[in-house]
Amino acid sequence: MSDHDLPLARRDLARRYEAVRRHTLTLAEGLSIEDQAAQSMPDASPAKWHQAHTSWFFEALLLRPFLDGYRPIDESYHVLFNSYYEGLGPRHPRPQRGLLTRPSLEEVRAYRRHVDEHMARLIAGTDEARWAAIAPTLELGLNHEQQHQELLLTDALHLLSCHPWRPALSADAPARWPTGRVSEWISHDGGLVEIGHDAAAPGAGFAFDNEGPRHRVWLEPFQIASRLVTCGEFLRFIEAGGYREPRWWLSDGWATVQAQGWKAPLYWIEHERADDPARTGDGGWSIFGPHGMRPLDAAAPVMQLSFYEAAAYAEWAGARLPSEPEWEAAAALPGMAQLHDQAWQWTRSAYHPYPGFRPLDGAASEYNGKFMVGQLVLRGGSLATPPGHTRPTYRNFFPPAARWQFTGLRLARDARPRAETPA
Amino acid sequence: MSDHDLPLARRDLARRYEAVRRHTLTLAEGLSIEDQAAQSMPDASPAKWHQAHTSWFFEALLLRPFLDGYRPIDESYHVLFNSYYEGLGPRHPRPQRGLLTRPSLEEVRAYRRHVDEHMARLIAGTDEARWAAIAPTLELGLNHEQQHQELLLTDALHLLSCHPWRPALSADAPARWPTGRVSEWISHDGGLVEIGHDAAAPGAGFAFDNEGPRHRVWLEPFQIASRLVTCGEFLRFIEAGGYREPRWWLSDGWATVQAQGWKAPLYWIEHERADDPARTGDGGWSIFGPHGMRPLDAAAPVMQLSFYEAAAYAEWAGARLPSEPEWEAAAALPGMAQLHDQAWQWTRSAYHPYPGFRPLDGAASEYNGKFMVGQLVLRGGSLATPPGHTRPTYRNFFPPAARWQFTGLRLARDARPRAETPA
Amino acid sequence: MSDHDLPLARRDLARRYEAVRRHTLTLAEGLSIEDQAAQSMPDASPAKWHQAHTSWFFEALLLRPFLDGYRPIDESYHVLFNSYYEGLGPRHPRPQRGLLTRPSLEEVRAYRRHVDEHMARLIAGTDEARWAAIAPTLELGLNHEQQHQELLLTDALHLLSCHPWRPALSADAPARWPTGRVSEWISHDGGLVEIGHDAAAPGAGFAFDNEGPRHRVWLEPFQIASRLVTCGEFLRFIEAGGYREPRWWLSDGWATVQAQGWKAPLYWIEHERADDPARTGDGGWSIFGPHGMRPLDAAAPVMQLSFYEAAAYAEWAGARLPSEPEWEAAAALPGMAQLHDQAWQWTRSAYHPYPGFRPLDGAASEYNGKFMVGQLVLRGGSLATPPGHTRPTYRNFFPPAARWQFTGLRLARDARPRAETPA
Amino acid sequence: MSDHDLPLARRDLARRYEAVRRHTLTLAEGLSIEDQAAQSMPDASPAKWHQAHTSWFFEALLLRPFLDGYRPIDESYHVLFNSYYEGLGPRHPRPQRGLLTRPSLEEVRAYRRHVDEHMARLIAGTDEARWAAIAPTLELGLNHEQQHQELLLTDALHLLSCHPWRPALSADAPARWPTGRVSEWISHDGGLVEIGHDAAAPGAGFAFDNEGPRHRVWLEPFQIASRLVTCGEFLRFIEAGGYREPRWWLSDGWATVQAQGWKAPLYWIEHERADDPARTGDGGWSIFGPHGMRPLDAAAPVMQLSFYEAAAYAEWAGARLPSEPEWEAAAALPGMAQLHDQAWQWTRSAYHPYPGFRPLDGAASEYNGKFMVGQLVLRGGSLATPPGHTRPTYRNFFPPAARWQFTGLRLARDARPRAETPA
Repeated sequence: MSDHDLPLARRDLARRYEAVRRHTLTLAEGLSIEDQAAQSMPDASPAKWHQAHTSWFFEALLLRPFLDGYRPIDESYHVLFNSYYEGLGPRHPRPQRGLLTRPSLEEVRAYRRHVDEHMARLIAGTDEARWAAIAPTLELGLNHEQQHQELLLTDALHLLSCHPWRPALSADAPARWPTGRVSEWISHDGGLVEIGHDAAAPGAGFAFDNEGPRHRVWLEPFQIASRLVTCGEFLRFIEAGGYREPRWWLSDGWATVQAQGWKAPLYWIEHERADDPARTGDGGWSIFGPHGMRPLDAAAPVMQLSFYEAAAYAEWAGARLPSEPEWEAAAALPGMAQLHDQAWQWTRSAYHPYPGFRPLDGAASEYNGKFMVGQLVLRGGSLATPPGHTRPTYRNFFPPAARWQFTGLRLARDARPRAETPA
Repeated sequence: MSDHDLPLARRDLARRYEAVRRHTLTLAEGLSIEDQAAQSMPDASPAKWHQAHTSWFFEALLLRPFLDGYRPIDESYHVLFNSYYEGLGPRHPRPQRGLLTRPSLEEVRAYRRHVDEHMARLIAGTDEARWAAIAPTLELGLNHEQQHQELLLTDALHLLSCHPWRPALSADAPARWPTGRVSEWISHDGGLVEIGHDAAAPGAGFAFDNEGPRHRVWLEPFQIASRLVTCGEFLRFIEAGGYREPRWWLSDGWATVQAQGWKAPLYWIEHERADDPARTGDGGWSIFGPHGMRPLDAAAPVMQLSFYEAAAYAEWAGARLPSEPEWEAAAALPGMAQLHDQAWQWTRSAYHPYPGFRPLDGAASEYNGKFMVGQLVLRGGSLATPPGHTRPTYRNFFPPAARWQFTGLRLARDARPRAETPA
Repeated sequence: MSDHDLPLARRDLARRYEAVRRHTLTLAEGLSIEDQAAQSMPDASPAKWHQAHTSWFFEALLLRPFLDGYRPIDESYHVLFNSYYEGLGPRHPRPQRGLLTRPSLEEVRAYRRHVDEHMARLIAGTDEARWAAIAPTLELGLNHEQQHQELLLTDALHLLSCHPWRPALSADAPARWPTGRVSEWISHDGGLVEIGHDAAAPGAGFAFDNEGPRHRVWLEPFQIASRLVTCGEFLRFIEAGGYREPRWWLSDGWATVQAQGWKAPLYWIEHERADDPARTGDGGWSIFGPHGMRPLDAAAPVMQLSFYEAAAYAEWAGARLPSEPEWEAAAALPGMAQLHDQAWQWTRSAYHPYPGFRPLDGAASEYNGKFMVGQLVLRGGSLATPPGHTRPTYRNFFPPAARWQFTGLRLARDARPRAETPA
Repeated sequence: MSDHDLPLARRDLARRYEAVRRHTLTLAEGLSIEDQAAQSMPDASPAKWHQAHTSWFFEALLLRPFLDGYRPIDESYHVLFNSYYEGLGPRHPRPQRGLLTRPSLEEVRAYRRHVDEHMARLIAGTDEARWAAIAPTLELGLNHEQQHQELLLTDALHLLSCHPWRPALSADAPARWPTGRVSEWISHDGGLVEIGHDAAAPGAGFAFDNEGPRHRVWLEPFQIASRLVTCGEFLRFIEAGGYREPRWWLSDGWATVQAQGWKAPLYWIEHERADDPARTGDGGWSIFGPHGMRPLDAAAPVMQLSFYEAAAYAEWAGARLPSEPEWEAAAALPGMAQLHDQAWQWTRSAYHPYPGFRPLDGAASEYNGKFMVGQLVLRGGSLATPPGHTRPTYRNFFPPAARWQFTGLRLARDARPRAETPA
């Protein structure tokens, strides 16, 4: 059965499968074999591992259960490339992913092709009854791979940031941001709002299980900033002694600042101190990013900061972080900029299940639900998020001290504000 | 000015001051000088330290700023007995409170008397204008001391639990619980409810800053158990392999179970394994508590468990933990038992500020607000909570792995339940 | 049988038993109940524990095996107060000795009396045949208790050094040292020398098993300093940047300096930096010791330093540490001062068994032999060593980073010296 | 000046340079790009790093100071590939060598060629006066590279041992050992012996600074085993419960056994427990090595064990480890087998300077001397030592818990033995 004989929806999914899978390879193009194999910290994974694990996901959840006669390319991959699915058997320990020198990158690429060929066969050859069981998991697998595309970039960036050379991922120079863009307070009246994904709505697209059910939330009136906090604004917090003053910080945050010696966001380097070969200009700060070390751009959104830093900045600025229902309710208001394309935005909301939440069935039940404590919700999307991957109901989450993602902040305040303007 | 010349409210507060302060000493009566000086872990404090710190609170927040000519008994106490108030200067490191062999217990008692005498003078001798500034902090200080009364007990119990002898705090034998008390599902219709403390309400008594402002919350219909989960019920979870089965556990919880080797709540000891001199009966489990080692009482509420264990049990039982608004809304329903007198009840809610929350002014601003991340809310009260200290809006909070408090759980479920009866 | 009916040697031992036991109590006199119960680090033990453990030693090695009908005061003490004798059953974990709030100090004193009474009975009532088996272990027990007398002092001093008050153990003021005492180089010709204790020699007194057998060692000609390095000399090393310059340090030592942030010996405090209430004078350094904080006395021997610091100083001074055979061979030379009465002297020799070494039989076999790796030998004795306890063959040993003992250094050099005078 | 115009000694050194450098590349042949980049633990280094560091040694100690106009290929290599020479400036942190994904393996190979070309120029073009200063360092550099050849193998083996596949370094099958080879006791009369390297002796070849000066040592009569302890012999220790019985172990060793859960030498895997894909045979033990997982060969020397295990085995066997002077004195006795070609042999001697030891001048002074505490001496050589690299005076050294080298043991005992035959 050739591609154009397939039902339209299925053909569309097949094409999206190809596109998503191809995009992963594109992202790894600037990385050497060694860059793709190393692991810079337990929280990060090698680029090679991401490429294998996203293939494993399709193999474990679709090819093994649904494709008759499927023969894995190597049985041990089932253990090596399982991330955290207890229900799918033992896993290679996460902090030792950088020791998986074998299979080689070439073999991982062969594994990807093996999975792709059989996925094509599965998509094309399945009858409609079975397809109903397969399609949602296939859709999940594509969204899963997109999440790993962002992680592949952030993990690779972290690895490169550990290298004294601070190499650039991309050869292009970044555009400078236009200066002078004012942050406006946008008001929301509060009241009973609905948030979350409604899977039963006509035309409802894909969403992760943790985005639903759609439900009502009561909000007090609030205001939210029209754009993200910039590097220039954040620099003023640093210069005002923000990292040395406990009163702006949550208790755990202050303990972390002291224990880790934080003095600025993760990739900021102060010239005077840094004996950095990539040092630029003759004063001030540089920031590491996909383009290597660059002089601080005051108008660019601040990124690579933790929840603790975001909350401390907001406190210092006489404001606060939005809650996640506030963020979602405000996302539809006119004037809201930089929602999905710059940096994930820390909210003040702990990641917890929505009322009536049920995890997915089967192996995928471990996808989201088991992380619902100790993490904070981030909303929006970043410049590293694959286009089209995110939406207003999307819930990202990380522990409060995590700093290696493209994470920034947007201010909010109660309708009767504590301060007149966002700092 | 003698006591009976004081305005009634002030006289009442003076008497409550005396009663609360006296009660602290009563609680320490069963403890030796050495028991009161030792620190069993960084999270716990010596009983002697609790007695000094609660005095420091009155000295630092009332005597120093408000009593003219006040002379501290020892200036160094201001550092030694400050707990976590960054705004009040340096502090002796918490994990080294057990090394404060000096001042001696006797000297700490003298410090208490010194503070009490001057507090009596402050209460009696202040004019009404100043009294308005003093009274709320005095009330806060009394509630603060009551919180430390419970901590004094739980910390002392933890210390004794570390001793091979497992000595009893109390010489009395505990009553056995009547068996057969069924747990009923009590229904709540949900909708827009109000929770939190309304400081402006007529007759509003004391509440901590974190209990307000009173605000609206939308709830979906839910059911909540009429009583706490018992030791007998929890034992069935253990016997069903609950501590060995990752699917019941949140991800962090499962990591903690494995790292710590948890097999039961903190103070449970299995006879077969235990070479414990306090071993009782000829099989099964014993539980350590204020009365020493006692055979497991199946009808008694389970206690000394972490949020992780509470959540895992609920998952296994086909239920969930209540959220804190659910708990508060349900507290007024008929049939709700064991609300405040047995064990604090873990909720699924992260500890976060209510809409419009403003911390107290001045030094007391650090009392509650800076802990608003990484902790879970507990509601209710325990057998170690001083009578009258707690109320339905009361928000207790601890990190999810904390186990040395009198913490238990009450089940909840969505109105269309996942299981027919609480296990 | 009364005391004066006993054979002279036995009567003498009985009297020494009484004197040694009494001296332990004398040493604890300046310490409060709380001071005697706390443990400041895993390497140190509470004074109360030392008092109990030294009694346990007599009970476990003599009363239990040799006194018919002996009834221990409490069976659990056998576990609580065993230090490291695997052959004598389980032990309370060392880092948790500070949690042994029970038995109380009073009960430990009763335990001492119980043991003393029964030891008196054992000494008086044993027939000569049995006495031959008992006497060496009794002698060992007395020397054991003397070792713990020094540890009791050094451990108590460490505890007090952790207290912000830095309280003095002794109310007396120390004498100032006479200045200007020159260090002379004393020469030894080397050759075949004998070192170690000869148990078979006529009149050979007690020695620990690790001091023998006496054996021959070949030495090259060397020179050794007539006195210990002083605080004034060591200060010059500090002022010359000694703690910032890797070339003086052994590799492990330099790593330790950096990891621990060492800038001076353990109890030295620089005034400019210290916000220390005990601060003395208006500049320079103070040193904590049995008399509290005192201004640095340039002529006093430097103490409380690690092997690493001793070796670095020697390197900087163009000299080296003596080996242990060199030290022992030189001890008999005229002009050697400060051998046994000021500070233990680090040697460059790792602690290892002498040729033909056999540990003691039975439980006491664990006394010394099992520590024969990873430790460095110290020779001499300190101001805290009980008079008469030490001798030229005595081998003390500690890990190279240990700093809380009365440890100092004496320089040595090859006969053709690397530098003209000791710095 | 062509090669054959050079003086013979210099021509010989030039050829040895080529041979040694070529051999390093040969050793890496079985390793993939990724295998050569990963770092399995802080103590081990990537094979790529070894290849770069050995080149850096020649560059830093010879090309930079002695070759006029030398231009490094990349200035940053001077920091990246410095191992521990404080005197030569900052170093990349050792535990992060696995993050040096750049330079690539290809670039490191180019670096080697760059260094080799310039070394050839230096060797050929230097006048005799300068050559006298260069030759000893060149000789040192070759011996240095040979040491890293062995480390390259042991580090690579450790990396592969961490991989669930347990891949083989070599495709060949190892020969089985002939069984039944008895261990004989070989006697030495003791007395005054000379050990160490005599640099002034006629025809004295290269030796490291720590092998001298030659000096006299007095030895008591002793016996030493003719061959190494075998896997079959060591298995009996395991089966006799050796790893569960504290009395065989030094105190630190027993603590390590318990903390690390040691049950056998590093690369031994018991079949019953192991869910190892490389499992061989149907019972007993397999051992990982250069040929992958292989069934235990009872006659093969036991390897990959720590000093602690070697000392415990010796104690259990009623023997002891030899001291390093004993080993060296016995090396010349007839009948001594397996001296240099199987496994390094732990001695009981701490690594310390010989009398009169002076480290090398200049940068090379850090080569050996600064490690002279906390390490134990090993003597002999292993199957991974480059042929010709070792000699009877050679002193290898490792910390007592190190297990990833080819380390074994040879028994010794006092002349009046504690047991009749080696176990």
